[in-house]
Amino acid sequence: MSGLTVLGEFACFGGVQGFYQHLSTAVGLPMRFGVYRPPEAFRQPVPMLYLLAGLACNEETFATKAGAQRCAAEHGLVLVSPDTSPRRTGVPGATGEWDVGEGASFYVDAIRPPWAERFRMEHWLTVELPEVLASHFAVRRDRLGITGHSMGGHGALTLALRHPQRFRSVSAFAPVCSASRAPWGRKAFDRYFGDDPEARLSHDAVELLRAGARSAHMLVDVGSADRFLAEQLMPDLLEQACREGGQGLTLRRQPGHDHSYFFVSTFMADHIAHHAQALR
Amino acid sequence: MSGLTVLGEFACFGGVQGFYQHLSTAVGLPMRFGVYRPPEAFRQPVPMLYLLAGLACNEETFATKAGAQRCAAEHGLVLVSPDTSPRRTGVPGATGEWDVGEGASFYVDAIRPPWAERFRMEHWLTVELPEVLASHFAVRRDRLGITGHSMGGHGALTLALRHPQRFRSVSAFAPVCSASRAPWGRKAFDRYFGDDPEARLSHDAVELLRAGARSAHMLVDVGSADRFLAEQLMPDLLEQACREGGQGLTLRRQPGHDHSYFFVSTFMADHIAHHAQALR
Repeated sequence: MSGLTVLGEFACFGGVQGFYQHLSTAVGLPMRFGVYRPPEAFRQPVPMLYLLAGLACNEETFATKAGAQRCAAEHGLVLVSPDTSPRRTGVPGATGEWDVGEGASFYVDAIRPPWAERFRMEHWLTVELPEVLASHFAVRRDRLGITGHSMGGHGALTLALRHPQRFRSVSAFAPVCSASRAPWGRKAFDRYFGDDPEARLSHDAVELLRAGARSAHMLVDVGSADRFLAEQLMPDLLEQACREGGQGLTLRRQPGHDHSYFFVSTFMADHIAHHAQALR
Repeated sequence: MSGLTVLGEFACFGGVQGFYQHLSTAVGLPMRFGVYRPPEAFRQPVPMLYLLAGLACNEETFATKAGAQRCAAEHGLVLVSPDTSPRRTGVPGATGEWDVGEGASFYVDAIRPPWAERFRMEHWLTVELPEVLASHFAVRRDRLGITGHSMGGHGALTLALRHPQRFRSVSAFAPVCSASRAPWGRKAFDRYFGDDPEARLSHDAVELLRAGARSAHMLVDVGSADRFLAEQLMPDLLEQACREGGQGLTLRRQPGHDHSYFFVSTFMADHIAHHAQALR
């Protein structure tokens, strides 16, 4: 295991918000992530929660705009905000567009060249990063929850469904519920998976549910005024798939809310409480 | 009075975070500001609080990074986050440096050319903007408080001391307490005031106090690990001037905290409560 480079550490709500970088074996490049340690984490190992950000965001987005640290301090959760993709990948086509490539990993392991070598976010998040975190911070790697926003909501739902033993709690803000149908997801999957139907469907939350995958009870908030709701997010399909499959889901359509972090921050306390109840 | 252009409005903690622009008579240019309206402001006029941001920030900084809306919703305060200066001023030298000119007004009315025509932030904030706000939102213009961060903390303290009838509550995060001594302030004052000693001293919180100015009780937080503490902020001088002058001051040196919005957000709830107690 390589060491951790401290990019910055900031006192915050009695704990420390840090930003770090390590050389990832999975990705073959330095990967960045934020870690918020609540006061309790300086006394004993505590559960942790992944916060996966959306398209064109990075490891600072949730840490600066979501107001999550106050809630995490109260409930004794470590918050982990990974970057949204590898950076400086040198992969042709990885930096020209905001909705595919760098900043737009969709949290999958790509299977097609030239993406497959570097774009291995699922492996990084599910195998490598938990070990890195457990080596450097007082965390309980057996108590890990996951949430996210938009593309990161897709990441939270699909990773929780694909790795139910790893992620013991799950929620999402305005998730892309069916990435193989949504224009954003289709474009990204074309690059990362080509026309491999098995790969595309097995990274689509709705299709995973239809195929029998199950996760912990899902808490999902969407804004009724989110301009991406019908075309990109498709929460109705999630609701239907959960109902038909017996998957626990609390889906809340929040009146007047849009796709912004003003929406995310408004409901962050509910999500942190949801994860704390499951993880603690 | 010219109309208001809505740049964006976002549901947030039961209220609305908006960003607006109006053509300022004081400045002669469009000026931008954020307004957060808590739920109560949709039923009746409520008090309002200015949030003045620091160097190189704008009207979005407090609105996106400080976590203030949650507290304002609880206490029924409208939050007003003005831009930190006029923009696209065409003033020679106004855009080349991050610590003077656009984004760095120090919230004064400049008296020297070429700055004096456009850089009239004090007049805008104390005379024009309250009228604009009262015309378009349910606010009580007689119940106005002021806070700020860094350069904005200087703005909050000096404007409160210069206009004690206007600002009925005051606080600051990591303020530049003596702008005529601090390198940032000296550089800006050279441009805006030249060597006019009266102007320089009358926009310096410490010197205003020494000259007999008084404001509502001040709540001031500074981080003990703020790298600007000794050279730029000088809270010891503020403490001494308040003590000698009988000015009410609660100065808190927060262990381990730096100059960031991780510091600001940590103590925002205390500041909002301080203002709500005075204004409601």
